[in-house]
Amino acid sequence: MDYFFNPQGIALVGATPNPLKGGNAILKNLIKSATENIYPVNPRYQEIEGLACYESLAHIPDPVDLAIVFIPVKMVPKIIEGCAKRGIKGVIIESSGFAESGEKGQQVQKELTTFARKVGVRLWGPNCMGLVDAVNKRVFSFISIEMWDNLMPGDVSLIVQSGMLSGAFLIDCMSHGIMGISKVCSIGNKMDVDECELLEYLLTDADTKVIGLYLESITQGRRFLEICQRATKPIVVLKGGKSAMGAQAAMGHTASMAGNGAIISGALAQAGVVEATGFKQMRDLCRTLAAYPSTPQGSKGRVAILTYSGGAGIVSTDFMENLNVTPATLTDHSKETLKEIFPEWMAPSNPIDLWPAVEQHGAQKAYGTALEAVCQDPDIDAIFIHAFAGGFNLNLDMEFLTRKAREMGKSVFCWLIGKESEAKIFQIKTQASGIPVYGELFRAVECMDAVFAHGKRPPCKNRAMDNKGEMLLHDDLETKLISHPGVLDEHDAKTVLAACHIPVTLEKVVNSPEAACKEATAHLSFPVVMKGLTPGGLHKTEAGLVKLNIDSPDQVEKAFTDLTQAMDGQGKILVQQQIKGDLELIAGVVQDPQFGPCVMIGLGGVMAEVLDDAVFGVAPLDHGDALALVGRLKHQKLLNGFRGAAAVDRDALADILSALGQLAMDNPQIKEIDVNPLVVANAKPIAVDASIIVL
Amino acid sequence: MDYFFNPQGIALVGATPNPLKGGNAILKNLIKSATENIYPVNPRYQEIEGLACYESLAHIPDPVDLAIVFIPVKMVPKIIEGCAKRGIKGVIIESSGFAESGEKGQQVQKELTTFARKVGVRLWGPNCMGLVDAVNKRVFSFISIEMWDNLMPGDVSLIVQSGMLSGAFLIDCMSHGIMGISKVCSIGNKMDVDECELLEYLLTDADTKVIGLYLESITQGRRFLEICQRATKPIVVLKGGKSAMGAQAAMGHTASMAGNGAIISGALAQAGVVEATGFKQMRDLCRTLAAYPSTPQGSKGRVAILTYSGGAGIVSTDFMENLNVTPATLTDHSKETLKEIFPEWMAPSNPIDLWPAVEQHGAQKAYGTALEAVCQDPDIDAIFIHAFAGGFNLNLDMEFLTRKAREMGKSVFCWLIGKESEAKIFQIKTQASGIPVYGELFRAVECMDAVFAHGKRPPCKNRAMDNKGEMLLHDDLETKLISHPGVLDEHDAKTVLAACHIPVTLEKVVNSPEAACKEATAHLSFPVVMKGLTPGGLHKTEAGLVKLNIDSPDQVEKAFTDLTQAMDGQGKILVQQQIKGDLELIAGVVQDPQFGPCVMIGLGGVMAEVLDDAVFGVAPLDHGDALALVGRLKHQKLLNGFRGAAAVDRDALADILSALGQLAMDNPQIKEIDVNPLVVANAKPIAVDASIIVL
Repeated sequence: MDYFFNPQGIALVGATPNPLKGGNAILKNLIKSATENIYPVNPRYQEIEGLACYESLAHIPDPVDLAIVFIPVKMVPKIIEGCAKRGIKGVIIESSGFAESGEKGQQVQKELTTFARKVGVRLWGPNCMGLVDAVNKRVFSFISIEMWDNLMPGDVSLIVQSGMLSGAFLIDCMSHGIMGISKVCSIGNKMDVDECELLEYLLTDADTKVIGLYLESITQGRRFLEICQRATKPIVVLKGGKSAMGAQAAMGHTASMAGNGAIISGALAQAGVVEATGFKQMRDLCRTLAAYPSTPQGSKGRVAILTYSGGAGIVSTDFMENLNVTPATLTDHSKETLKEIFPEWMAPSNPIDLWPAVEQHGAQKAYGTALEAVCQDPDIDAIFIHAFAGGFNLNLDMEFLTRKAREMGKSVFCWLIGKESEAKIFQIKTQASGIPVYGELFRAVECMDAVFAHGKRPPCKNRAMDNKGEMLLHDDLETKLISHPGVLDEHDAKTVLAACHIPVTLEKVVNSPEAACKEATAHLSFPVVMKGLTPGGLHKTEAGLVKLNIDSPDQVEKAFTDLTQAMDGQGKILVQQQIKGDLELIAGVVQDPQFGPCVMIGLGGVMAEVLDDAVFGVAPLDHGDALALVGRLKHQKLLNGFRGAAAVDRDALADILSALGQLAMDNPQIKEIDVNPLVVANAKPIAVDASIIVL
Repeated sequence: MDYFFNPQGIALVGATPNPLKGGNAILKNLIKSATENIYPVNPRYQEIEGLACYESLAHIPDPVDLAIVFIPVKMVPKIIEGCAKRGIKGVIIESSGFAESGEKGQQVQKELTTFARKVGVRLWGPNCMGLVDAVNKRVFSFISIEMWDNLMPGDVSLIVQSGMLSGAFLIDCMSHGIMGISKVCSIGNKMDVDECELLEYLLTDADTKVIGLYLESITQGRRFLEICQRATKPIVVLKGGKSAMGAQAAMGHTASMAGNGAIISGALAQAGVVEATGFKQMRDLCRTLAAYPSTPQGSKGRVAILTYSGGAGIVSTDFMENLNVTPATLTDHSKETLKEIFPEWMAPSNPIDLWPAVEQHGAQKAYGTALEAVCQDPDIDAIFIHAFAGGFNLNLDMEFLTRKAREMGKSVFCWLIGKESEAKIFQIKTQASGIPVYGELFRAVECMDAVFAHGKRPPCKNRAMDNKGEMLLHDDLETKLISHPGVLDEHDAKTVLAACHIPVTLEKVVNSPEAACKEATAHLSFPVVMKGLTPGGLHKTEAGLVKLNIDSPDQVEKAFTDLTQAMDGQGKILVQQQIKGDLELIAGVVQDPQFGPCVMIGLGGVMAEVLDDAVFGVAPLDHGDALALVGRLKHQKLLNGFRGAAAVDRDALADILSALGQLAMDNPQIKEIDVNPLVVANAKPIAVDASIIVL
């Protein structure tokens, strides 16, 4: 990938002297870039912007390893051929009119991708704005050269599927002094080079501390997760099109299949990725994690709030409820130190309201003493400083004040309001010393939360997501049950699950009332359940084919007769142990177009419909993954033992989820597994009903 | 109150020439203010800042109706006496060291309040920053005179219990050009004048369109609600100290009892108040509602998104999910109009991605055509314009472009990013034409949501919250049951509820097994429930005093014997109809220190503990209030008929809640009513167990 970022020679196909055209803007940006050997290509000119212009790629005499293409779609294929002939390694196609424009464009894009892969030319784009690199001063984009006035280097790199985020947004971030950037890659329709390769590149890039991604689709889901799982730098993802209407819009924008929002969130969480919801929130998460990419061992997110405003202290505290940050309790030693500056009538506590101390001793002394106290305090992990710029004798030298705190590994965050001009100066200066500054209290707290939550993420994993492990199913069962398309009935489905060591109800298919009675009395015990299984039938309850609470041989006989009649002589009759559970769950597997087999666990029964509390993980899940998946259920309380019921055996539950994932990984013909309900009885989950759909 | 805002003569007690003291800042601010007749008072000086200085209030020769006091606590009482003698109507005490400083200060504050009420002097403060009035150019505050450089008039007034919000925060809002202000009242400990009076004043103030309040306590809860209920201007409240730790901090800051967060949210919603969570979010809600204080009849919050960024369109759409705003579906007519500017390959849809049109036709033409289309579209209520300031030929004249849309009653909102200086100019200009501008997409969507949600608020009500209506209980029942302190047992409690027309289970207290059998067979039907009621006993189930599923006379007899034994011969035995319900609710009444009797309704059973879904309303509730209260339950779905169960009869449920509220209003000796469970059977709620605690 390095030829895209650090090319030895760049041809610009579509260079033009017309200042209203993108081909001119790209050229001007190339000329201003810290790069040499720029070769405009356009048969109509001999010279543009003072550079010799070439008739074609073939006419360039010197080595070229990158071509930037900004010409109408119909001319692109021929140029790519030229690139291949010329030995050009990478091409950034910035023109639009490809897959996002309908069928014809899709066709061109497809053919081009195939051709490029054949001849070994890598294509970046199309429908994109290329690269902006503020550290190495390179702008390979048709953005207006005004961008250069605002270029502010930083340590956050972005990969974005939106031109706005590699242009307008950068100008906003940088001109307001909020965040500098390293490399911003606009990938558009990502016909060839995609987020995976760029992410891998940026993870090894010395100028990048955090990578933020705005994606409308994740095309190679599993590879993306593999990369994220082994990443040692924080990764923040904003996924556009998670709502139904947003997904529709994403199709028109970058021809992206947006995918299932719940599955994407599950996959990202599983891979330790921080998920963002808005552009500026993503920006703030990125710059915060760049300041604090890892939290010290044992950090508990206990925050001391140093404020000049009692009200802001209170509201900060309110925001911390239910997050990974919590207002610290000051030690007696800290309180003693604070008493030096507090008026007599005021008892030191957190939030530390410094206003009276500021009035009496000045801001630097008041904040300084408070910082000294909280720096020494072993029960404090982070310090949240409220600052005002522009008067009230509240001017603070943050760099000086916080040096010790930062040395001692306390994370420092700053909330700032103030007079516009002075606030900007304060912000730039403070951020330069490594302390993130925020304009809104909630955003500050949200970013603290992300830092401490990220500290609890699963450890990095270097593993291939298609690792199949040991096959769970014997060949004969596979041959018999899941090698033909269709719906496996409950009993067959549970036979498969049982073979994978998933606990299922005791049950037997019976052919006569007598056999049913024998089964009920000899192997099960009353009450039992009887069910009628029709071929392909999924909704037994609705069809009257489930008889519960069968309590005597007479009732068994009656149920047999009734079920036989109801099925009109078709199907099978099942006698089954009746499970009295404490809790109903649902579990299963779905095939996601982006991520492949995904395991689902959720609350079942009435809860399922009311709470909509179901979470997804990408198979295979190891035991830790499966436990973490269960841990992402919103209504955890239900699993912890309720009204006298024992707590759910989470290890047993995790084993079931791992097995479901493994079963689906081993047998790609499985389209769907649905275990509903998965009843928890005496702490143990057991599959009470199930179905499997085979492709 | 007018003498506080528009005084005819102002005495400043504590005036000083020392520029480091607040008493000097106040004087300088008074001199700069558009007000006449300023009288510094300080026996040590004859002249300060060019004004004659008086030895005491008594020495001022001219009429004075407002005194501003900034002197140490211990000297304040004497001064207030002087104010009374001098006939001064209002005093703003800006000094601190009162109730917020501990017991001694509390005592001073209490005595002062009593004295002032006796002599008829109104006190504003203490521990506050007085008044800033940007429209009439008055600053009665010790804030630094730099404030004047930033003064930007607007139509939002604030009442704040935090000095920061009447100083630092205003400078931030105004210097960034985000929001101008009308009157900002800093009320500190509000020993006498409180949010109620100021709110009433501002509701009639011609310069105020919206009132925002930051409160750490709501001291006269019911009066506050009465005012809000009849208000015709939008009111936004940020309540500090809603979390447990925040409440603790509020006590130290303004000596405020923060109260129960859930009750406060319920009360505010009931009164049609918009609740905010953060300072800048409150600012944005206020300025948005000032632009759109009421939505046109029938408005459905259907939003057309006009964007230059496909990505921003998608993320905007994602944010609208589950809110009172929704992406509009374009009519064919709108699509036809858009085709004039769209490239051929692009099908017009919402979000309306204008980038290709901008490239082809320029921004003014592209946005103009799109605005023309959506203005005419009857299925569009609001227009969300994405703008960029500072290049890319995206400069828009919003005032001109949106004139027609605004004329046609379409609300216009604008999301802006851009180059700092140009963005600020755009923002100020656009907001001057009445279109609110936001820097973050989510905030814009959140504010749209508030506008459309506010349009659905309950109609204004002019009623006293202590209106008792018709007494529900007959005197004899009151005398017998709820005139003595203690816990009413289940049967007595239900007797009271039944007298208030609340459905309860059929039941009877019985003295013998025979009587129990007779009751069970003659008046109830098997199965029945039997319970042992001990004096003051609240936890019958835990004590083994509830027998369910009693199915025969034999079992009745056994239960009678068991219960008699378990109660050791004490207490009463109850035979009761056994209700098989579809859903368990809980209902009740609590006494809130700020709001008095509040009615609660929540999900019961296991749901209560898992979901914590309970909402509060302030009694009395009329039928509409009670229905709205039920409508605030988060998990509405459960009430709408579930798995074959009928939908809950919401009218019947509302009647119960109204009756509970009325019962508590009529009988202030009732400390608590607990109906748990309130079971819904065949759509009708019925009280299955209940207790009442009498003071």
